[in-house]
Amino acid sequence: MIVLGIDPGLANLGLGVVVEEGRRSRHLYHDCIVTPASLILPERLGRLYDAVSSTLRTHRPEAVSLEDQYLRKQADVAFKVGQAVGVIQLACAQAGVPVFTYGPMQVKQALVGAGRAEKAQVIYMVKATLGLRELSTSHAADALALALTHLASRRMPTALVR
Amino acid sequence: MIVLGIDPGLANLGLGVVVEEGRRSRHLYHDCIVTPASLILPERLGRLYDAVSSTLRTHRPEAVSLEDQYLRKQADVAFKVGQAVGVIQLACAQAGVPVFTYGPMQVKQALVGAGRAEKAQVIYMVKATLGLRELSTSHAADALALALTHLASRRMPTALVR
Repeated sequence: MIVLGIDPGLANLGLGVVVEEGRRSRHLYHDCIVTPASLILPERLGRLYDAVSSTLRTHRPEAVSLEDQYLRKQADVAFKVGQAVGVIQLACAQAGVPVFTYGPMQVKQALVGAGRAEKAQVIYMVKATLGLRELSTSHAADALALALTHLASRRMPTALVR
Repeated sequence: MIVLGIDPGLANLGLGVVVEEGRRSRHLYHDCIVTPASLILPERLGRLYDAVSSTLRTHRPEAVSLEDQYLRKQADVAFKVGQAVGVIQLACAQAGVPVFTYGPMQVKQALVGAGRAEKAQVIYMVKATLGLRELSTSHAADALALALTHLASRRMPTALVR
């Protein structure tokens, strides 16, 4: 099973593709799409949409694992992330790929075994699980972590219940 | 000049198309796209995107006039509206149509001549300007008001400065 993990954001969008082969997970691809604030908004959204659509076409994942948004604070930040999530959801819907969402605690639980783990531990586990030495950006690491979380949740659905 | 006004929202999206002929503005089309909360989010966003894309194709506006979002309050509302605005901006970018945004006070100033006008006065002016007897929804009225605001702002740019 191939899963595309997405760490959504308007300025930085993390993408990570993982394939599960038997009991092993293998890294296929990761990237971080950066849209400069100097671009007009439609162009930034267009780039995010094109990047997600292109990744869906290239890797043909069976599922997308998207970070759930916890929006307790700033409405302006929520509005920006919302626009990014809107075009991501649209690209997935047009490709017919179902989207699953996981919160940060579920990701930590799935990868480290503790919902209150440090971010560095999550990145360490992503690298160890996928045999990667370096990960260029934390957004790509988050995206790969989300893909691994979805695979883990399919193996042990109850372990991830919040 | 043909202008498409859009009152953005996830549950209710107002669309209104107006053409300026000489010194007169004429109504071409209005609608309100309702996406039930019972649908999954990607499907709701897909319907909004399809409705905007289809309106752009049918009426070929030279500009889109979108309500500017004032997001002082709830982050969850901002996130929902953000997703709708994301797919609207994307549809306009893909069609190559520029998007202009106007806040509620600019719309009131343009239509009623007072930034603190009542909403009912705005709807009255939309109907009077376009010779409409009825307007099915306030979202469609808002969308037509936005289209008229863009036309007014081109005639008298300085009158609309906030």
